[in-house]
Formats: sequence, structure tokens, C-alpha cells
Amino acid sequence: MPGQIIAQPNPPPDPSHLPDSVKEYAVQLKTSSVLTESELRAVQKFRRAANYIATAMIFLQDNVLLERPLTFDDIKPRLLGHWGTCPGLVLVYAHLNRIIKKTDLDALLVVGPGHGAPAILASLWLEDSLSPFWERYTRDRAGLTRLITKFSSPGGFPSHINAETPGAIHEGGELGYALSVAFGAVMDNPHLVVTCIVGDGEAETGPTATAWHGYKYIDPAESGAVLPIVHVNGFKISERTVYGCMDDKELICLFSGYGYQVRIVSDLERIDQDMAASMEWALAEISRIQNAARSGNPIVKPRWPVLILRTPKGWSGPKKLHGEFIEGSFRSHQVPLPEAKTSKEELQALQDWLRSYAHYELIATKGGEGVVEGAPSKELLSIVPDKRDKKLGCRKESYAAFKPIEVPEWTRLVVQRGSQASCMKVVGTLLRDTIRANPTTFRIFSPDELVSNKLDAVFDVTGRNLQWDVASRAQGGRVIEILSEHTCQGMLQGYTLTGRTALFPSYEAFLGIVHTMMVQYSKFTKMAHETDWRHDVGSVNYLETSTWTRQEHNGFSHQNPSFIGAVLNLKSTLARVYLPPDANCFLSTVAHCLRAKNYVNLMVGSKQPTPVWLSPEEADMHCIAGASIWKFASVDEGVNPDVVLVGIGVEVTFEVIAAAALLRKLAPSLRVRVINVTDLMILGPHGSHPHALSNDDFDTLFTKDKDIIINYHGYPIEVKGLLFGRPGLKASNGRSDLDRVTIEGYREEGTTTSPFDMMLCNHTSRYHVAAAAIRAGAFFNPKVSTEAQAKSAYIMHMAAKDKEYIYAHGKDPEGTFDTPKFR
Amino acid sequence: MPGQIIAQPNPPPDPSHLPDSVKEYAVQLKTSSVLTESELRAVQKFRRAANYIATAMIFLQDNVLLERPLTFDDIKPRLLGHWGTCPGLVLVYAHLNRIIKKTDLDALLVVGPGHGAPAILASLWLEDSLSPFWERYTRDRAGLTRLITKFSSPGGFPSHINAETPGAIHEGGELGYALSVAFGAVMDNPHLVVTCIVGDGEAETGPTATAWHGYKYIDPAESGAVLPIVHVNGFKISERTVYGCMDDKELICLFSGYGYQVRIVSDLERIDQDMAASMEWALAEISRIQNAARSGNPIVKPRWPVLILRTPKGWSGPKKLHGEFIEGSFRSHQVPLPEAKTSKEELQALQDWLRSYAHYELIATKGGEGVVEGAPSKELLSIVPDKRDKKLGCRKESYAAFKPIEVPEWTRLVVQRGSQASCMKVVGTLLRDTIRANPTTFRIFSPDELVSNKLDAVFDVTGRNLQWDVASRAQGGRVIEILSEHTCQGMLQGYTLTGRTALFPSYEAFLGIVHTMMVQYSKFTKMAHETDWRHDVGSVNYLETSTWTRQEHNGFSHQNPSFIGAVLNLKSTLARVYLPPDANCFLSTVAHCLRAKNYVNLMVGSKQPTPVWLSPEEADMHCIAGASIWKFASVDEGVNPDVVLVGIGVEVTFEVIAAAALLRKLAPSLRVRVINVTDLMILGPHGSHPHALSNDDFDTLFTKDKDIIINYHGYPIEVKGLLFGRPGLKASNGRSDLDRVTIEGYREEGTTTSPFDMMLCNHTSRYHVAAAAIRAGAFFNPKVSTEAQAKSAYIMHMAAKDKEYIYAHGKDPEGTFDTPKFR
Repeated sequence: MPGQIIAQPNPPPDPSHLPDSVKEYAVQLKTSSVLTESELRAVQKFRRAANYIATAMIFLQDNVLLERPLTFDDIKPRLLGHWGTCPGLVLVYAHLNRIIKKTDLDALLVVGPGHGAPAILASLWLEDSLSPFWERYTRDRAGLTRLITKFSSPGGFPSHINAETPGAIHEGGELGYALSVAFGAVMDNPHLVVTCIVGDGEAETGPTATAWHGYKYIDPAESGAVLPIVHVNGFKISERTVYGCMDDKELICLFSGYGYQVRIVSDLERIDQDMAASMEWALAEISRIQNAARSGNPIVKPRWPVLILRTPKGWSGPKKLHGEFIEGSFRSHQVPLPEAKTSKEELQALQDWLRSYAHYELIATKGGEGVVEGAPSKELLSIVPDKRDKKLGCRKESYAAFKPIEVPEWTRLVVQRGSQASCMKVVGTLLRDTIRANPTTFRIFSPDELVSNKLDAVFDVTGRNLQWDVASRAQGGRVIEILSEHTCQGMLQGYTLTGRTALFPSYEAFLGIVHTMMVQYSKFTKMAHETDWRHDVGSVNYLETSTWTRQEHNGFSHQNPSFIGAVLNLKSTLARVYLPPDANCFLSTVAHCLRAKNYVNLMVGSKQPTPVWLSPEEADMHCIAGASIWKFASVDEGVNPDVVLVGIGVEVTFEVIAAAALLRKLAPSLRVRVINVTDLMILGPHGSHPHALSNDDFDTLFTKDKDIIINYHGYPIEVKGLLFGRPGLKASNGRSDLDRVTIEGYREEGTTTSPFDMMLCNHTSRYHVAAAAIRAGAFFNPKVSTEAQAKSAYIMHMAAKDKEYIYAHGKDPEGTFDTPKFR
Repeated sequence: MPGQIIAQPNPPPDPSHLPDSVKEYAVQLKTSSVLTESELRAVQKFRRAANYIATAMIFLQDNVLLERPLTFDDIKPRLLGHWGTCPGLVLVYAHLNRIIKKTDLDALLVVGPGHGAPAILASLWLEDSLSPFWERYTRDRAGLTRLITKFSSPGGFPSHINAETPGAIHEGGELGYALSVAFGAVMDNPHLVVTCIVGDGEAETGPTATAWHGYKYIDPAESGAVLPIVHVNGFKISERTVYGCMDDKELICLFSGYGYQVRIVSDLERIDQDMAASMEWALAEISRIQNAARSGNPIVKPRWPVLILRTPKGWSGPKKLHGEFIEGSFRSHQVPLPEAKTSKEELQALQDWLRSYAHYELIATKGGEGVVEGAPSKELLSIVPDKRDKKLGCRKESYAAFKPIEVPEWTRLVVQRGSQASCMKVVGTLLRDTIRANPTTFRIFSPDELVSNKLDAVFDVTGRNLQWDVASRAQGGRVIEILSEHTCQGMLQGYTLTGRTALFPSYEAFLGIVHTMMVQYSKFTKMAHETDWRHDVGSVNYLETSTWTRQEHNGFSHQNPSFIGAVLNLKSTLARVYLPPDANCFLSTVAHCLRAKNYVNLMVGSKQPTPVWLSPEEADMHCIAGASIWKFASVDEGVNPDVVLVGIGVEVTFEVIAAAALLRKLAPSLRVRVINVTDLMILGPHGSHPHALSNDDFDTLFTKDKDIIINYHGYPIEVKGLLFGRPGLKASNGRSDLDRVTIEGYREEGTTTSPFDMMLCNHTSRYHVAAAAIRAGAFFNPKVSTEAQAKSAYIMHMAAKDKEYIYAHGKDPEGTFDTPKFR
């Protein structure tokens, strides 16, 4: 077929038309004798042992040390796992061990190809980093047997690296984020070098393609370094990779442009000397850059090292099967011998493959004097760090590094009830003080929106940390503004999982760009929470503003409140969604979130000045309750209402209050209760979330039988889904079997238009609320009833008049957003 | 503050440590006399006129031709819009016009900085591309006045390019996708050159950073070309840009590595000659590459041209204000004179700025012989193409190019009822035949998962179109597999909006990566639908498989059905979600979706072999109905049931049927009705969606009073949200006020484990369904009632036994997935 050039492994890329001089930009090294002979032997044995174990993990349910010829019974019922990336991961792991041992390096490993778990788990077992966390995975025959036979099977380690994997801070299931996570991890960890393996599949993702610029935000004086290793093995699941089709000149050029100094590691005959020399060079370059910065003479635009490792996919696995290439082709991506349980030919090939590692030289089949049965040989272990804390699988940064930040007292920053204040302006002062109090453990990651989102008070005490030009003088700065939500999120994850705290402010519409990243992260923390050895981490904190409700500068593209729904789908133990209605509530909420642990906190707010409805004390109580009756806007303080109006979100709550004021005039006999919900999770059925109100509390707040008109900031289906299952929400007293609840919210209507027009378009205006209230209240209140239809029509007429005004004058009618008065 | 280097405009980037020889990779051109003197004058006048109009659009509500001195009354009440990017957009537009006119080029323009709408709208008005679509925007005083005074105001053009903008196929609100959209647009349009402007803000996004590789998937024989112009103006909203901090050497290196030949356009003194020469060079290069390929001698790894345009942000705007730089700094991003309505100084600055364009030379303030009042001068228009179809704003490709594809008769490909078939395998045959029938109007974009998702039958008739190495012999191929969901989505959008049809198959968990892109796209099509001049486009078709229900190879990271929720939030007129239960239903559904117009179609399915429940005729009827009673699995064909079991999704429906079989044995007197829902949209309240069942139909299907046990593939909150508001869903007959409906679905539980364990973890197993059915049915059926508790306990005991077996043996019990028998 056209385009199907897969007949031979790793076809050499056609030469680009770049001049050969490009090659001179790459680093040339003398590699002949970096490793001593004993080091070389030990490294090679480590690799053979790890590759053996990784292979066995994919195939064997018995006979794990091949003490008798393989039979079909030894093979797992289903063959699962990913072999192709494993030999490359093992190569890197072995050399990291050696260099850690040699130089006492403080290192973490972030593995992009997380599906290569067998390689990592085998290496962890060899260095004895499993047993401290999972006692059954001892470094002996029992532990090895369990590791191999239970892998990728219920009760065993899963097929991907995850939170159950010691040393891991990144799952690597959804590809693209390893690199930005690694950058986040080194920030404010000046001692740390995080090696990050990026597969050439992952390299095709957008998030990775831009994360290469991450170094432009790293200050070598205050932070550690990332050593990226691009593993180019040429194939994805079944298609070739982009990088695999690029020749050395193209890759050298690309990475030189990204700002790196490139070393190509591709001497297959002498790969260990090559890798050892390359790693030593890279670490020396890192030291050189860091030393310059730390001694006050930072290098401008330092060319940080990157290694490009070209090895065949599934290297050392079967060469060919049924006449087709396996090694060096996409066919080794998962299970290279898929019929090993039933085909004699494949079983034999597996046995040959496993035996090719000569594992009997590496793992003791019998115990004896000083020898533990099933343990790796001493020679092999000679490259493994002695000190537990130095081992890649045991680094404290990866599981026990959380230092809670000091959150300033928010009550010092409050604004007066009755005034107008921008929630974000006020929150900015809290963030400013938070930065001051936590100069090395708190950061803000934002897609260039801090000023636009009115959080700029932070710049009174800190700066932005773009390091790539004249600013590159090791001056730090707590704010990173890169127009890549993916990079912000990845850095935030790496920073948080290594024990620090971060905030991600964003335009509401664009936080959804990292929807799936956030879900992946929450999966990691859920699993981490379920282990007994991973300590707490800080919460991840999202601050959404510039919402759909204010679209004067932007328009339809900037209207998307869907991130709320993303958080609602997380495990309820971890997910928190707040929509604080004013500046004081916002202060209380942000302070709470910054102090909280393990959660995904979403705060949705507003940057324009809006009324401050509650005093600090009231705000505090309101936020603790999650929702309460706002007596000042209710008739008779909300006692015995005919109808309940509910606002959830800043602007839509304003409309509820404006509706309540309108109703005082138009339907003075209608008894209105106004409620604000600031904690969305109170709504769900009792037991569905730790914050969900009991049925009694729910009824006390929302009444047992009155209609509830909800004006919600997000998509109505979310509140509907939350309320479903709450008892007592059907209308009664002879009315038809419909819900007592009317919910309006964002309905995908809008453009560049005035604030009030956005409310009109989406049926969340005061007029819509008031008309619904009259229609609903009429059932319980005969006085209202007689005129209900006329009044409701009159209200909608007012809406039409306002709409007309807006389109004629290009602005909302004067006074639209004056704070409503209640007598 | 540290890191705040914003005191001067565009600080020259510090030099990188790359050798100076890098500069030789960039193209040097003789630029002195490319434009004739009259061309030069016309281009400059076009630019002045467009910049004048763009500025006026941001500020003026009156006195649009400055026929008297400006007063505060002339200024809009709120100043809205983005000036900074406009002069650069105008520069490109003017030169595109000139080259189209000169060479008769077929060109589209895709504008990444969509917020620079004033520049584009001004240019469209000048070339008279507004009035054919919006009759009030005539090329005269009335039209100009409207354009200026209503811009970014209710009823006027919005502040971003969108579907209301003639010529546009990309909104450019959410940044990152312009480039991939441009690549999609040129595919199978060999005549077309799509110029794509990428801002240096957008260039920081991941999706853009990887989309540069798009050319590796373009066959110059079958497709047209993209001419990317990177506009480096140095600043985002308030932070500098990454590209702005990179010097020429870095940018040349980066883009050479991406595979381009770079031309830096930065001679501010002679920018028009520079741009004209650069464009001519670029188009000549494109022709050279295309001619080679089209004459059978394709160039391997052709270095396609890219222009890097360095001009100051807000160029030609105010230089300084209150002692601070405006031009060339972030301060010109939006409105450079924000107080023009109240500050005399700023009003004067605005007047000076507007007058600096000497617009009276460009636009006629008075009509007369052959002169239309308010129209642009003839000299200026001399660079505008004469033929309407050649104008950038009038290209048919952008609004009237849809050619429906020929969808093969799916009934020829059906499988036998009672057999086992992989839905995807069977769908693959339909796609194969679709490709055969539509060799140049149908494409598949996938993140390297076609084989993994078992759709590989397509490779019987076509290939993959990776062009970057030995395959680069102009051989075509309908499949693009790049491991970038963003690139797939962008290409799909560009391809679809220019009139063709595409399919995006994906692992379920990873389609959410393009959640917000899909929402942005649906916003574009919603607006397009609301204009009266944009024709239909094909639907965008998503095919999700490798779902959370089958996680042997992968694990928790591969479990995320949230894309369903994303589609549920779209306008109901556009959104369709299908979960076809077997291979025949899937064929019918895919055929329907490929034929459909304007929709976002989401199909969720399975790749493993599963039972074929329905004959082709039954499948057809079932898909038309959206849901129906499955009599074969129901007691007495489902008549007069005690309880209703509902499956939505392949695997969870299997569990429902297995539960029905189990209940036959354990509770033979329980009258069970089994329903499958294949069209999710039937569930919502009547009127909420065109497919929503009427209340009567709903009751007929689901009964008026019996309990409904729903086993749903997605997050339960979605079905809850859909059902909310349906009357009659509360339990009655003296039972407590709870819903009659029990919903289980994915609850964020899982790891690498067996298929049945995934059902157990998420409470969607047959045991959970059966136990719930007995509990519910007991109310209506006294016979069941007496033993209900014991039976329900016994069933959950069976579940525990199965779990135990799975963890002991690493697989599901034998026979778990045998097709259930019903006597």
C-alpha cells in the first residue's frame, strides 16, 4: 500500500537539505573509556537483568527463573504490557544509577513512556526500592515471583507507571506532560536534577512540543535542572514517528533552536560508553550553568544539555517472527510474541529471548552463604546507590516532601460591606502576602493573564520569571506566564507533587484546555491517597475569572464554563467547587483552598467591581455553611416564603438580588427568599459528597414544597445532575408532576456584547428570574396569582425594552448595575 | 521589580550562543525593487486606510471621517478591541491582495490572532467583501459608518473574527489552532495556498508548537500549500513572548529543524519591498516543490517557506503616553488610549494618531463624478483583485464548498445476529468502502490508533500519509496518524469547513484532550448556521473506542468517558451522541453520521468482539427509534414489567442482558423489561433536543411507575442531568419520595484489570444490576418480595466470589462473556 513503509525496521531517514555544518552544533565527545571495565560490566549486567525481568513480567505466570524449559502453562493467559520502550528505559535507569553512585547526585526520574512500567519496576526491584513501600515485593525469590507473575493482572502492579510506583511523580498514561512536570519539580529545588525521558511518540504532542521552552523559565540559581533524554525509537503503535523520520541534522537544528546543546547518543556498538560519557558531559554542563548563576555571573541564554537517544524499538527482543521484523519496528510496541501461549514457535522464541540475557549470571537461583535466593548479583548491584535516600525509587521529593505554606490572615484584607470591590483585586492582595510569607514554596502559573485578571498586586513583591534575555540574571520571580495552559498545568503538577503549593489563575473559558490533564492528575492523587506510604500533597488551586458573563472585549469563543463539570466528575473526596459571591467570601475561600491538602479546588469568580454583600464575619459563616439565606434581600428575612430564589455565581447572584428588588415593587405581597450557594457541592444528595447537605438541612434552606428558581453560573445540566435524587423536589399540592426547580445558566448564547445582554441572552437576567418567581409564587399566594400573568408579561416587556436600548446605544441602560436597594 | 523588563519597547534579544553561520540557513533576498512605484504607493495607501479604519473602529461612535475636530462625544462609551496585532495583519492582507491580483493566486487567509478583527474587517470592507454577505456594510459612507460605530458593540461585528466574518474558517479566540486548521484546508485542494498568520503569543501554545510538523503530512501533488507567517511583535497581554526573546539565529535554527526555509522580514524602513519580495520568493518555492511532485519527481524533505515578520506591537499607533512606551510594548495590546473619552491629552493623541494616516487621501469624504462618498480611492484599490471569487473574503472554499460524500450501503456489510463481532472491525469495512467511493473528499485523522482500534480494513485501499522520508513520493493516503489530538482536530476542522468530510477515531480517554477545541468549533458552526449566507458543512464525526470498560493493556489513565458530557453541553440543534450496542447498529449509525450535515456526532463503541444482538432490519429500526425494548431478553417480551433494566453502551448493556438471564434463574417470577438506548439524546425532557422522546413515548418505553435501573457507559451525573425535569420519575404508591431511577456508570474506579473486574469496581456488573432489580421489583411483585433480601445478598455473594477468582487467577471466570441464553 502507498505510504506503508514498514517492511524494514527503522528505515534511515532521508537526508534533509540542511548543510552538513549543522552537525557541528552538536556535541562531540570522546567516549572510549569513560566507564571502567568493572563499571561497564556492572551496567551491562544491570541492563540484562532488568530486561530479563521486564520480559518475564509480560509473559510468565510461572517458572520465572527459567529453571526448566518453558511450557505453555508458564505463559500468562493474556499477554499484556508494552515491550518496545523498555530496553531504552532500562538503559537510562542503569546509567542514572551509576552516575548517582559515582557523584552523589540528587536525582529524580520522570518517565514519559509510562506504559514501559516493566522496565521501571524491574529496575526498582533490582535497586530494592519496592520493598520499603510494598512489603511483599522483597528482593528475593518470593518478591521477584510476585513482581513477574502478578504484573498487569488484578492485584499486581498495573501496566503503567502510576502513584503506586515508588519514585514516580508522573503517570505517563496520557502523553505529553512529562517534560513540563519535570520542570515544575526542579523549581525551588536547586539541588535536584530531574532526568526526563521523552519518547518520540510523546514528542509529537503539542504540550511536549512547547514544553521544550521550559528552560526559558528556569533560574539556575534558585532551581535545579532537567536533563531531557529524547528516546527516538522510530515507531508509535503502528505508524512511524515524526522524530524518527528526521535525520540528525534536523534534530540538532530543532533543539539548538529551542535553546539546547545537543548530544546524539546512537553508537549501538558501544552504547554504554556513549551514554556514560554523554551523561557526564550533561551533568558537567548543568553544573557549569548553575555555578555561574550561583556565583553571580549567570550565563545569558545558557545552552542546557539534551540527549537524543537513538536505539531500536524493542532492542534485544526477537529480531524477526514469521519473516517480519520485530526488533526496530512497530511490532515490538506491545507484545512481540502474541501467541506464545499456544504457538510452539513463539514459545521457543520467547525462551531463546529470555535466555539471551543469561540471567543465571545475574540472579541467584539458589541461596547460600551471603547469597539470598532470587536476589541480584553483587556485581550488578555495584552501580546501585548505597544510601537509600539517593535511590531513584526512594527520593523523599517524590512522596514525602509536603511543607504546608503559611497562609496570611485573610481578615486583615477584607473590604467593607456595601462597597464595591473586584474580587480579584482583593484576592491579589492575599496572594501578594502569601508570596511574601512563602518565598520559596509557593508559585503562580498563568497563561499571561495575571494583570488582565486583576491579580497584579502580586507584582508589588515579586516578578515574572521569564529568564531568556536581559532578565536572565538569576533574579527569580514567583510568577510564570507562558501562553500554554498545558505547560502551566504540567509545571503546577510537578511543583505540587514534590511538596509545594501553587495557584493557576485562568480565563474561565481556557482552563478547559487542561481538562484531561487535570483528570489525569486527580487520578494520580486518588491512587496516592489509597497507598499508605505516600504523604499528603498540597491542593491544586484553580482560580477562574474573566468569565462568560463579561464579554465586552472578547466574545463567544471566551464563553465556556465547562471546567466546573470536569471537577464534578472527580471522586467526591477530592473535588471542590466554589463560586464565592463577593470579595470577602473570595478571600475566605482562597485562604481555605491554599491551606487545604490533596484536593482539586476550583474557584470561579469575577474581576470587575461588584457589590460586597457580606461583612467579613458573615462571609466567613456563609463560606463555612456553603449556602445560606440572604436575609437582607429576602422578604421578612426569608421567613415562610412563597418562592425561593437561588444565585450560584457572582453575576447571576446579582441578577437574583435585582430580581428580588424588582419583585418588591411589582409584587410586594410575594414572599421571596433569596439564597446564595457558594459551595456547589452542598447540592448533591446526602452522602454523595462530604459537603452535601443532609435532607433536613436542605429542606430547611430550600423549603419542603416551594418552587426554587436557580440562577447558575455554569451549564444547567450540572445542577440538574447534582439535584437528581434529592427527595422532595417534585411539585405537589395538585400541581402536575414537574420539578419544583427551574434552572437557568449558560446556554451557549452570546457574542461580544454588554454584560446585561449576556444575561438576557442566557435567560439569567433579573427579568427572567422575576417572571419565573411570579409564575411559581402564584400557586401559593392568591394575591400574586390574580395578577401573575400580567405582571410576568410586563416584566418580559421590560426585558425587551432593555434589549432594544442596548442595541441602540451599544451599552447597558444607566444604573443597570447599581446595587439594588431594599426599602 | 525583578523580571519586569518592560521599560522599553521590544528589547533586542540577547544573542544566543549559536554560531553566526546559522544565519546562512535563512534566505537572503534582493528587495530593492520588487514593487513598482505605483504598487508601492497603492500598498502603502491600503495599509494606511485599513489602519485608520481599524483604529476608528476601536474608538469612534461618530465623526468617523474626522470631518471636524474630535470631541469626547465622538468616543464610544466603552473602548473595546485589540489594536496591537492590527498593523501586522493589515500588512499581510495588503500584500496578499497585491500578489493575488498579480498572479491570480487562489488564496485563503487563516488568522491566528482572531482578536485583531478590526484589521481584517477593515481590509474586507476596503476590498468590498462585506457587502455581498451583509448588505448594510456597503462600500460607502453608510457602510463605513456602521462598520466603525457598531464594532464590538451589540449588533455590530464582534471583537474577534468568527463565522460572521466573510472568508474566515477559523475564529482565533482560543489560541493554538490556526496552523493545523490551515493544513486541513489545503488538503485535497491542490490549487489553494492558505496563508496562516501565527502570533508569537499563539506560538507558545502546544498545539501550535507541534503543528509546524504539519507539512510532514502534506503531499505536494495532491494538496495545496500553507504559507505560515509568524508575527513576532514581542508581547502578549502583559508579558513578553518566548519568540520575542529569541534572536534571529534561534528562530532560524528552530524553523530549519522543523523543516522550513526561513525568511526574516524585519526591515522596518522598507517593509513593503521586503514583504513583497519575501512573498514572491515563498510562492515561487511553493510552486517549485509542487511542480516537482506533480511532474513525478518529488523533492524529498522539501524545505517549505516560512516568513518571520518582526514588527513592533501596535506599529504606527501612539509612541508614548504619560512617559511610557506604547508602540512596541504590551501597552498597545488592547486599547492604547484608554481614557480618550475623558482625557483631553488622550483625545488629542487619538486625533493625531488618526490624522497621521492622512485618510482624506484615501477615502472620499464627498461623492462626485465616478466617486462614491465614503469609498476608498482608486489608487488604493488598484491592488485589490478584480474578480470577486479571487478576493480573500469571497472565496467559495470558506463558505460554500460542501460536497456531500457518497456513503456506501451499510446493509451490504452486516453481520449475522447471534454471532460475535467487533463493532470496529465491521465499521472498518464501511470506512474502507467510503474511502474507495470518495477518493478525494474523505479523510481520517487519528492519533496513531487505527490498527489498535481495529479499523485497519481501511488499509486495504489506502495508506498513511506521512510524507517526510522515503514515503515522500507523492503517493497520497487518506489516513493521517499523528500523536497530537490537537493537530488531528485542527486538520479535521480545516478540512470540514472547506467542504469535505472527516472522521476522528480515538481512544475514548484521549478525545477529551480536544474538548475545548471541539467546543470552539461548535461555536463557529452554530454562528455559521445562524447566518443566511454560509452553506452547510459536513458533520464532524468522532468515533471513540478502547473505552474504560476494557483495561487489560492499559489502566486508570485510559479511563475517561468525559467527552460525552462535552457534547451534551453543546446547542442541542448540533449535538448528537450515540452508543450503538452492536456491530449492525454501529454500521447504521456510522452511515447516518457520515451522511449528516452540520452536527457534532459522537459515537462510542467497542473494539473487542461482542454479541450481535440485532438483525440488520432490527438494528435499523432500533437506531431510528433511538431506544427500544429488547424483547428477546425481557420476560414475556417486556409486557407489563415489574422492573425496567436499561443498558446504554456496549459492555454495560451486555451486563444488563446477563442480569436479565441471571434473574430468569434466581427470580423467575420477576417480570423484567430490557431496554437499550443507542441515542442518548432521547432521554432529555421533551423539547430539550430534537431527538428527545415525547412524554407519552417515554412512559410507554420506561413505564409510568416501575423502577428503572440504568447501566450507563458514562458518568451517571450526565444521565441524571438529562432525566431531570422528566415528569413521573419519582417513586409513588406510598414509597418514599425518591427517584424511581437508579443509575450506575463509570465512577472513577479502576486500574489495569480484567474486563469483568472493571464492571465490578464501577457497580455496573450483572450482579449489581440484578440485585437492584430484585430490590426494586419486590415492591410490585409479592412473590419476589418474600425472598428479595436473601436473593439480593446471594447475588452480591456471587460478585464477591468472582472478584476473588479474578484476583487469584488473573482473569475473569470461564464463560463470563458467553452470550447469555434465555431458555
